[in-house]
Amino acid sequence: MKDFEFALSTKIYFGTSIIEETIQKERKHFAGRVLIVTSGKSLIKYGYLPKLISMIENLPDTEKVIVYDKITQNPKLAEVQEAISLGKKEHVQTVIGFGGGSSIDAAKATAIGIVSDKDIETYLLHGIKPQRDVLPVIAVPTTAGTGSELSKGAIISSPVHHIKAGIRSEKLLPSIAIVDAAYTWTVPERITIETGFDVLAHAIESYMAVNANALSEMLSEKAIHIVCKNLPLLINDPKNHMAREQMSFASMIMGINLANVGTCLPHRMQYSIGACTEISHAAGIIALYPAWIQHEFEVNPKRVNQILQWLKYPPVSEAIQVKQIFKKILIDWKVPYSLSKYGITQSMISKLADQVTGNLANDRLSNRENIINIIFKESI
Amino acid sequence: MKDFEFALSTKIYFGTSIIEETIQKERKHFAGRVLIVTSGKSLIKYGYLPKLISMIENLPDTEKVIVYDKITQNPKLAEVQEAISLGKKEHVQTVIGFGGGSSIDAAKATAIGIVSDKDIETYLLHGIKPQRDVLPVIAVPTTAGTGSELSKGAIISSPVHHIKAGIRSEKLLPSIAIVDAAYTWTVPERITIETGFDVLAHAIESYMAVNANALSEMLSEKAIHIVCKNLPLLINDPKNHMAREQMSFASMIMGINLANVGTCLPHRMQYSIGACTEISHAAGIIALYPAWIQHEFEVNPKRVNQILQWLKYPPVSEAIQVKQIFKKILIDWKVPYSLSKYGITQSMISKLADQVTGNLANDRLSNRENIINIIFKESI
Repeated sequence: MKDFEFALSTKIYFGTSIIEETIQKERKHFAGRVLIVTSGKSLIKYGYLPKLISMIENLPDTEKVIVYDKITQNPKLAEVQEAISLGKKEHVQTVIGFGGGSSIDAAKATAIGIVSDKDIETYLLHGIKPQRDVLPVIAVPTTAGTGSELSKGAIISSPVHHIKAGIRSEKLLPSIAIVDAAYTWTVPERITIETGFDVLAHAIESYMAVNANALSEMLSEKAIHIVCKNLPLLINDPKNHMAREQMSFASMIMGINLANVGTCLPHRMQYSIGACTEISHAAGIIALYPAWIQHEFEVNPKRVNQILQWLKYPPVSEAIQVKQIFKKILIDWKVPYSLSKYGITQSMISKLADQVTGNLANDRLSNRENIINIIFKESI
Repeated sequence: MKDFEFALSTKIYFGTSIIEETIQKERKHFAGRVLIVTSGKSLIKYGYLPKLISMIENLPDTEKVIVYDKITQNPKLAEVQEAISLGKKEHVQTVIGFGGGSSIDAAKATAIGIVSDKDIETYLLHGIKPQRDVLPVIAVPTTAGTGSELSKGAIISSPVHHIKAGIRSEKLLPSIAIVDAAYTWTVPERITIETGFDVLAHAIESYMAVNANALSEMLSEKAIHIVCKNLPLLINDPKNHMAREQMSFASMIMGINLANVGTCLPHRMQYSIGACTEISHAAGIIALYPAWIQHEFEVNPKRVNQILQWLKYPPVSEAIQVKQIFKKILIDWKVPYSLSKYGITQSMISKLADQVTGNLANDRLSNRENIINIIFKESI
């Protein structure tokens, strides 16, 4: 067994329809002036945001609830800067990330910016980590996929600078994560499948990662079993609330792996796609998967065959067979994406490859010469 | 799925022969004056304690290492009071619990007492929880079993007061746990088996507990598989270092369950045995198990049969069969204990039963009239 470190400093609340009782129970963490950072849209349409605001406003120690609701997918530096200005002006003491991974990541970056003299742009462009404590972040995910509620990264895009990059620090770990599966009941089919695949990707990549350990491997196995069983149930019946809860659980335990182990090349490569297109995080991952897993088999066939077994496929002996299996899974799950669908062409590849950053060493494949270009090319 | 809360505020380091590099890495936590609370004995005999002292003394920011090495099994109030006096006199800033569960529990209680104006006796006898922060505790377990390195309890005995009770608070959670399986290589056979059974007991009880949740159940299943496979390997060959490491891993993940879910009647009942005899914690648990699991089957046959399946036994339909299976396991593992072996007789039962305290509601069985007396009686 490999030596490892393990930590989880976020307090987790998990269940279905738990938001109100949890906020009541943790009301001291909502004291004073709180800022909700969110995407608005469907969270307003379904009444989730107004209800959350009202729940918090009714707490005895909460003075004011301020809302910034303009976060978009691949959250933008400019949006975070607006949220920070608002938070500074209103002297907020706590930041709530409410929504998918974009809202939670934006909330983390906002929590840095509000207490910093430097512009958040400096952290993003120069890879600076926050030196002092940031404002406490409470994460309330509304999709099952991101895992951002337990991770230490805030992934922010700046189209002006052609960059999508992560600010990473243990100081960004949310103090509380409230994972209420009831929020996912109204997530549309396409987003359910894409974010569900992202959970699978977190499980597969944290299992293939150099940093994988006995504890994370156990969680990966569990998450793969859950997605394999429950995502098809949801494709068949989006109102299957038990399957929704299982997917939220799998997403949450993969958040633990994101914080402790990290991911592989698809997550690194997706950032550079996200910096230049409006493709969602999960859709970018999906487009890269068949080509990536094929090459991953070449460097670690045993682990890839273990994953196939968990997915209820027989072991294979050739890398191309793994690619075919994943193409079949993506067809079965109605998301057979390729990069060309999002307007990415051969001529853009070398620029995309140049923009890939982060901890590449966590993927055994990254030693292979030119592998990033090859995977991009094969994913078009 | 049941709603649940989950937290793990201790940073874990796990592996074999990791102590030196971990202490180096976390050296800022050993700064100033540190107190090691330990049992001495075999830790001195094998050179572990002198080596640990020397490693810490050589750290650049460590001023002085003070040692209290008189902790016994079922750690005594008087010993903790001595450790506290020493710690106060020496103005220590950090307490290291080095040894089995007794040393780590004593270290936690010492960390309360050093910063408190009240005598530690007050906390123990009146169930008071520490109100202010206690000194940071670093736990270095040397047996595979206790789980105390991740739990929030300090279980202390006071023979004078005929009490063995727990001081419980999140403030007692160690800041760092260094689980180095190499320390367990020299643990004698009997203690290996007894503490190994304690790991199994943590897995079974946290699975049967009212507080069990989807995450803890996954960890229980894993721990049961590991003990079932590796404890027999160690009985056969105590030098099997891979099996030692697996047992340390199982013990550690059950520490996570102790902190989040807790245990059932055997752990509550063992305290009252430990208060009046010198029986070890694990031996007391073992003596109670066949009778307890029999009655547990009566209130939750499905879960007990699930445990039997994980232990590679077929399902049963009668409670008495579960008792027989556990008696067989204990014979196979060479620890077929009963309470009479430790001098406990029928006439002592009602007094023992009166002294059972703690969260009984975590065991569905505890509603049953007179159940504690019945289990004690059947365990003689």
